[in-house]
Amino acid sequence: MFCAALDVPHNFREHLLRTVGLNIFRVGTLSYACQDNRVLQINDGTGKKKLVILGTGWAGASFLRNIDTSLYDVHVVSPRNYFMFTPLLPSVTCGTVEARSIVEPIRNIVRKNGGAFRFWEAECYKIDPASKKIHCRSGDGTNVDGNGEFAVDYDYLVVTVGARPNTFNTPGVVENCHFLKEVEDAQKIRKSVMKCFEKAALPNLTEEERKKNVHFVVIGGGPTGVEFAAELHDFVNEDLAKLYPDVKKYVNISVIEAGDHILTMFDKRITHFAEDKFKREGIDLKTNFKVVKVSDKTITMSNPATGEIAVPYGLAVWSTGIGTRPIIMDFMKQVGQANRRVLATDEWLRVHGCEDVYALGDCATITQRKVMEDVDAIFRVADKDNSGTLTVKKIKDVLGDIYVRYPQVELYLKTNQMKGFHDLLKDKESEELNIEELKKALAQVDSQVKLLPATAQVAAQEGAYLADCFNRMNICEESPEGPLRIRGAGRHRFKPFRYRHLGQFAPLGGEQTAAQLPGDWIHVGHSTQWLWYSVYASKQFSWRTRMLVVSDWGRRFIFGRDSSSL
Amino acid sequence: MFCAALDVPHNFREHLLRTVGLNIFRVGTLSYACQDNRVLQINDGTGKKKLVILGTGWAGASFLRNIDTSLYDVHVVSPRNYFMFTPLLPSVTCGTVEARSIVEPIRNIVRKNGGAFRFWEAECYKIDPASKKIHCRSGDGTNVDGNGEFAVDYDYLVVTVGARPNTFNTPGVVENCHFLKEVEDAQKIRKSVMKCFEKAALPNLTEEERKKNVHFVVIGGGPTGVEFAAELHDFVNEDLAKLYPDVKKYVNISVIEAGDHILTMFDKRITHFAEDKFKREGIDLKTNFKVVKVSDKTITMSNPATGEIAVPYGLAVWSTGIGTRPIIMDFMKQVGQANRRVLATDEWLRVHGCEDVYALGDCATITQRKVMEDVDAIFRVADKDNSGTLTVKKIKDVLGDIYVRYPQVELYLKTNQMKGFHDLLKDKESEELNIEELKKALAQVDSQVKLLPATAQVAAQEGAYLADCFNRMNICEESPEGPLRIRGAGRHRFKPFRYRHLGQFAPLGGEQTAAQLPGDWIHVGHSTQWLWYSVYASKQFSWRTRMLVVSDWGRRFIFGRDSSSL
Repeated sequence: MFCAALDVPHNFREHLLRTVGLNIFRVGTLSYACQDNRVLQINDGTGKKKLVILGTGWAGASFLRNIDTSLYDVHVVSPRNYFMFTPLLPSVTCGTVEARSIVEPIRNIVRKNGGAFRFWEAECYKIDPASKKIHCRSGDGTNVDGNGEFAVDYDYLVVTVGARPNTFNTPGVVENCHFLKEVEDAQKIRKSVMKCFEKAALPNLTEEERKKNVHFVVIGGGPTGVEFAAELHDFVNEDLAKLYPDVKKYVNISVIEAGDHILTMFDKRITHFAEDKFKREGIDLKTNFKVVKVSDKTITMSNPATGEIAVPYGLAVWSTGIGTRPIIMDFMKQVGQANRRVLATDEWLRVHGCEDVYALGDCATITQRKVMEDVDAIFRVADKDNSGTLTVKKIKDVLGDIYVRYPQVELYLKTNQMKGFHDLLKDKESEELNIEELKKALAQVDSQVKLLPATAQVAAQEGAYLADCFNRMNICEESPEGPLRIRGAGRHRFKPFRYRHLGQFAPLGGEQTAAQLPGDWIHVGHSTQWLWYSVYASKQFSWRTRMLVVSDWGRRFIFGRDSSSL
Repeated sequence: MFCAALDVPHNFREHLLRTVGLNIFRVGTLSYACQDNRVLQINDGTGKKKLVILGTGWAGASFLRNIDTSLYDVHVVSPRNYFMFTPLLPSVTCGTVEARSIVEPIRNIVRKNGGAFRFWEAECYKIDPASKKIHCRSGDGTNVDGNGEFAVDYDYLVVTVGARPNTFNTPGVVENCHFLKEVEDAQKIRKSVMKCFEKAALPNLTEEERKKNVHFVVIGGGPTGVEFAAELHDFVNEDLAKLYPDVKKYVNISVIEAGDHILTMFDKRITHFAEDKFKREGIDLKTNFKVVKVSDKTITMSNPATGEIAVPYGLAVWSTGIGTRPIIMDFMKQVGQANRRVLATDEWLRVHGCEDVYALGDCATITQRKVMEDVDAIFRVADKDNSGTLTVKKIKDVLGDIYVRYPQVELYLKTNQMKGFHDLLKDKESEELNIEELKKALAQVDSQVKLLPATAQVAAQEGAYLADCFNRMNICEESPEGPLRIRGAGRHRFKPFRYRHLGQFAPLGGEQTAAQLPGDWIHVGHSTQWLWYSVYASKQFSWRTRMLVVSDWGRRFIFGRDSSSL
């Protein structure tokens, strides 16, 4: 914090220089990230801890929006200087919403909090938890200095680098397919769609070539792929059909899905509705087809019934799920988590195997502690007088803490329509139970442990939760508010992270959206589309993007989507 | 028109096949553009003439907006499927206006006229006036067929391909400088400006490197360069200063101009005002400096006083004027106009040296016929009874035609505050004058012949004029409305093109614009900025772009410009 000439408010730095009387400024490539940081803080006493955040996606931006920058020396490193509202990304592919309407500069987000912080547009390529440093590299830029590498030390590191598209090593995907993960991807798709139409309208083509040029293939029947297919279908029918009357008849949209159905994370009723709607509209649904190869001209897919078939295509969008970023793979090796897909953290989002590193969003997952692993410790904690048996009263005393620490217990009771812990006991009349009886009672409880999905909703809630923990670090250090430590003494400082599912949407095109809200509330139709509009407008990070998104929708209603090949 | 399977309405083609009974469809790469076209039309009588337009800039779009597509078989070839409102291009570089707000798809423009036409997104690389064909090539597109070449024949060809940036063969310009001619250029500049700021904020740089990264250099003190410098200055001071407080102090904007002054096409008062304003604001004006070389790190410029100096820079925008496109150079060679900068046309926009080819906009210029070249013919025409002398009455009979045919005569009278032709005669009492006396009288008149500037205004007026001529071709063939043919018999079909200058603006930043309107009306200030807003909003090609541009301005007023590095 005090090493780089540019990283410290001038007056503060000078004050330090005068009072401490030390010249600890060492300028150089790597000495910038200086190890004197914490020494100085101990000497000085007032120095803020250095909090470094990697990434500006949902988790990172949500953390930054909530962190109190007056308590920490906040540094952000990300290759993008903006946050992007991912749920509207498929809308950008066809110009229903403009790219800039769904992005908000990170500097704006933090400045609104009145906070001082530093942002560096660079990519972190290595985390070094042993020496508490990260190594970064800034992207290329014509004529501009600063392509070099630099290192940043940290007291706390918050990793929110997200994931990358998963190609499952399918040959030709990286070279020939579009992804739909970044704003630039959506912009490229939009331009390519128009190119496909313009190419199909050229005079010197055969019918087959025309057909090929406007054969749009979506690989992956998840929400992103399905929404893109629906958007494209609307774009073609509502806007392009009028402008390209001769091309219209050649257009074909295919969705290839390896499983039996599309939108499998939704209720079956939604899946069926979507499939029926797509079939009615002439979108070619190819379920149980696995793409095995993509060349510049054809997509080869296989199916037990048909074997391998190759179809010519004009534009392909690969949207089959997420994979691990190289930096996370490397980091996992260092902290003893090799061969995992994402970083494992505890319920407080702390990365297993190292100190002061937190991970959230798509690059991490919470490994919920199993009850059966801790059952002996639970017994010990509950059995305060070491009698070797638990009474119902003894259990009740710690039950609140157990519910908080192991949410699967409560979930298990709920799922099995039990009213309380008492129902878990087979012999409900028994006054006491020993360790073996407790184990029996809890044996099935861990079946309820589920991984959280890699969604924006989870990442945003994690970011807000972690920022709140950081903001109340000192308070909670003194009066911890978490559950009893089962394997240690005292209480946890914070309550563990608990995800609250607010429901999910699947826009299906034609002003119809499927919604699945908590409490098994399912609805598909035009009214849900308006719910979707209002939820997504309200969830915008700023009034600016809110206004832009709403006016984009309005413009589309009045004038249609733009078909300039930009 | 009847050879390409895709170029003819099906029923019409079949009708022809049946009635004419001829199979004249020859399919192949080049036979597509068929020579049977005119033969057929003669046979059939109802066939429309094939009108091919190259380019969709101001001239082309203005022509297309006005042409009656029911009279001609209209084909458009352009590498861009949209029209771009160039005067707002500098605003796009800093996000005052969004790129898509200033473009309108050509298909939309023509469709609004209710007209049928064909558009092909391709580049014409060769005009072949001898066989009345153009040769085109469509751009590359991933996975898409149709990169091949194709030929299109024409009855009439309207060339509006515009110009390209002129580097004066300065080494390193193409590799290292940005231009400001296309929408993509402006988008790239916008992204690069943000990159420069992000790079200058990185931790591992020296002061010099930071300064270099945010040294923005504009080469060329014309309206585009000046407006970009002003926009950038506003962007830095109104928006970026808050977000990049540490970088602000390093920012430097330089304008390099080879001449004595910037904005030399404007009145001196405007030039001085702009220069003073720039100096006050700390924009570094380097007049009398010629750029001799651009490397990836420095710009080398020379001045008689200082000699050659090299300055490091972060971003350079080259905006020094326009040069000739290769297709025009090649075409000029074919029609005997080699070694010219732009195509020469007559006053009816017809290209000298070939038939049925029209050229307008930045790729062409009108060569006004000189009076002194035609003075003998003028004498002959006016001297109806071949008496060898002209009376004032005889002159008056043809004076209207002479004024229309040679506008320099009227201009000369006006400039020299003469009231009529009579004032040109030295011996005003003389009743008659012979050829020598006429020559003497008109000797100075041609000094008033001026080339029209390469502006949007000229191009737009030319496009509208030519479309009007085409729309009334049949009517004017029968009852010509042009002036007497001086060197031929009868009258010209149309009045020659006459440019009406409506004034020009130079936005200078800080909500101030300089305006120079006809009648020597000059004003600089905030009120002119509002005039500028209303003129440019009203000049938009569609209600859609009008709404977008106005809402962009509104958004900027409320929220400032976006600083996402997109």
